[in-house]
Amino acid sequence: MAGSAATEVLGAVFIAFAAAQVGKEIAQRLKLPGVVGEIAAGCAVGPFALNWIGKNQVPSLELFAELGAVFLLFAVGLETRLADMRRIGKIAFLVGSLGVVVPFLLAAGFGAAQNYSLAKTLFFASAFVATSAGITAAVLQEKGLLSKRESQVILGAAVIDDILAMLLLGVVSSVSKGKVDLAELALVVVQAIGFIVLIGYLGTRVMKKAPALLDKPINPKSPLALSIALCIGLAFLAAQIGLAAIIGAFLAGMIVAETKHQHALAEEVRSISELLVPFFFVYTGIQVNFGILSSMDTVLFILVVTALATLGKWVGGYFGARKLGHQSANVIGFGMVPRGEVGIIIASLGYKAEIFDEKLYGIVIAMSLITAIIAPPLITRGFARIKESKEEERMEPATNPT
Amino acid sequence: MAGSAATEVLGAVFIAFAAAQVGKEIAQRLKLPGVVGEIAAGCAVGPFALNWIGKNQVPSLELFAELGAVFLLFAVGLETRLADMRRIGKIAFLVGSLGVVVPFLLAAGFGAAQNYSLAKTLFFASAFVATSAGITAAVLQEKGLLSKRESQVILGAAVIDDILAMLLLGVVSSVSKGKVDLAELALVVVQAIGFIVLIGYLGTRVMKKAPALLDKPINPKSPLALSIALCIGLAFLAAQIGLAAIIGAFLAGMIVAETKHQHALAEEVRSISELLVPFFFVYTGIQVNFGILSSMDTVLFILVVTALATLGKWVGGYFGARKLGHQSANVIGFGMVPRGEVGIIIASLGYKAEIFDEKLYGIVIAMSLITAIIAPPLITRGFARIKESKEEERMEPATNPT
Repeated sequence: MAGSAATEVLGAVFIAFAAAQVGKEIAQRLKLPGVVGEIAAGCAVGPFALNWIGKNQVPSLELFAELGAVFLLFAVGLETRLADMRRIGKIAFLVGSLGVVVPFLLAAGFGAAQNYSLAKTLFFASAFVATSAGITAAVLQEKGLLSKRESQVILGAAVIDDILAMLLLGVVSSVSKGKVDLAELALVVVQAIGFIVLIGYLGTRVMKKAPALLDKPINPKSPLALSIALCIGLAFLAAQIGLAAIIGAFLAGMIVAETKHQHALAEEVRSISELLVPFFFVYTGIQVNFGILSSMDTVLFILVVTALATLGKWVGGYFGARKLGHQSANVIGFGMVPRGEVGIIIASLGYKAEIFDEKLYGIVIAMSLITAIIAPPLITRGFARIKESKEEERMEPATNPT
Repeated sequence: MAGSAATEVLGAVFIAFAAAQVGKEIAQRLKLPGVVGEIAAGCAVGPFALNWIGKNQVPSLELFAELGAVFLLFAVGLETRLADMRRIGKIAFLVGSLGVVVPFLLAAGFGAAQNYSLAKTLFFASAFVATSAGITAAVLQEKGLLSKRESQVILGAAVIDDILAMLLLGVVSSVSKGKVDLAELALVVVQAIGFIVLIGYLGTRVMKKAPALLDKPINPKSPLALSIALCIGLAFLAAQIGLAAIIGAFLAGMIVAETKHQHALAEEVRSISELLVPFFFVYTGIQVNFGILSSMDTVLFILVVTALATLGKWVGGYFGARKLGHQSANVIGFGMVPRGEVGIIIASLGYKAEIFDEKLYGIVIAMSLITAIIAPPLITRGFARIKESKEEERMEPATNPT
């Protein structure tokens, strides 16, 4: 029978999914990461271009996009062990912190030079800060690089980055309203750190001690069903206390990665990701408003802002990870560059609070998207260079004698 | 970062999913089919009971529920071969047709006895007609019965049933508006049959002749990605021409079942189903309004209507499948009983057109849901009896001589 409203949305779901596959295929044939093609496909079919997905249909894709990011980071968590995270903890902390401080200062300086108000400067600088872990994680997964030390540093740093960005946004929101409640801010930070430590540490411990937990129900697919419940539940909890939902999903993945089901679950979650993740990237692309590019001034402004945003993150990441050597630090710097949906969310908050005008709002969104598109090729190239230099090292002893 | 509206919906998504798992587990421990527990869980957490999922959150689950039904029937299609369907074609046609005619006549007689207007009688009778394939399909899949001849007859009959129900609803809508456009109705039917024949027949042929089609893209998961695209695309097309979206998904499953990827895809789609299908059943349960049960009169009325609806479908299915023997015909009759979401959609149409008052609307919804809840245990018991009688037959020659 026809008739339900959900049926009408099926068309938009189909277009988004099919466009993502076409975009991914084209990108991969051009030797680009698949996500670049998926974001570009979103740009193409969205309301600002072909309009195959109209403005009214975009909101119904939002939950899919959110769950796409959640299951992407869940899959990434499934390939991450707590022991690895602890080994790279200090460097990840340094990368995450410097990756927040440097772009913030750069952007604040730029805002001051433009004579922005204090509130505007602070909000603008905050949008420079938050890394979108999803885009980098997808590239690392696609290229089979998740087990590399550099990848683990990037993921760890993204968690630190998210805590700091949340804290910063709290401060900035308070300042722009004219009052800073230090006690409240402290509570927010304690909650966030408590959540991550408690879930990440205790969760993995419980799983290790009682690995049969996932097999208790009658349902033969119970390990998957319970893992999904854990993933969505922790994603929701993380969002509730002000962290990104994907941080909860990442922790959930790390927890079930401690069980004997790790590999079977990774395989099953990959099937779910194949359905949901494309919506995350298409949705990112759908939001690009090409109208903003009509003035040459704005285009230049966007280029400058994007260059600053890229440079800031790269410098912060690079110096945070310097200890690991030039090539590794370089790739880690690039890994922190994408802002994606997180920058868009901050831009929306600034716009809703009437601190950003429409133009600055559009510019910050453009910066978020451009960094999301340029980072993936930089990351894959950086990893290729690490491989080359390692091969050279290995070759040298053999070639020297000849 | 916090803030997006989709994040707030995550809570409802979590509750729906977790409740479904708990309900399923309890039902299975009580030796009931899992879907009964999932529907009951939906009743429990919905806005008319515990209200853990509020009225405002229900619509955001609708797309998930729809996709759950779509992927359920896709998975069922993946376990169905065109050759099997052709073998049982005639009986399925008989079961589907009688399963429409008998309940329609019973309900029309009841409506006339109640002095309903012509339009009201016709709409009421139409709500008796449409079988929800999803609920029966889930039971058959859960119990591993999809390859049985009886199951194939039920699935084939559900397709016929949906075409006839669509035709009937077209006629009824026209009559209630006072004008019947025969040419338009004929077009609708030709479209529907054309869609099914073209997709079902040509699609499977193309797949058989060019099985490498699914492996063409670079993406190593391309068979799954392309199958998902086909599934959502055909579901959308089916809905566009007035059929149930799940019919398109079922055909998509049958098409890719003709490739060498059948078993791998079935496994992968099972992982996706594990995530999405619970939303279909929870959503069905969520819509139960217990308020309607406060008057004893209404309760009695619901019981009579439900008894008629169950009897009508069972008789139609039974006599359609009589050739297959008593036990098989019995199970096929029960397999056609659930109305579920299809009855609810027709009730909504009647209510919106002001042909049903609020009470009759509630009664038809109650009938749809009760048939959905009572059918699964009847189906599993019926299959158990077939097994028993076969075992007895096999035993007899051995036991007679002693």
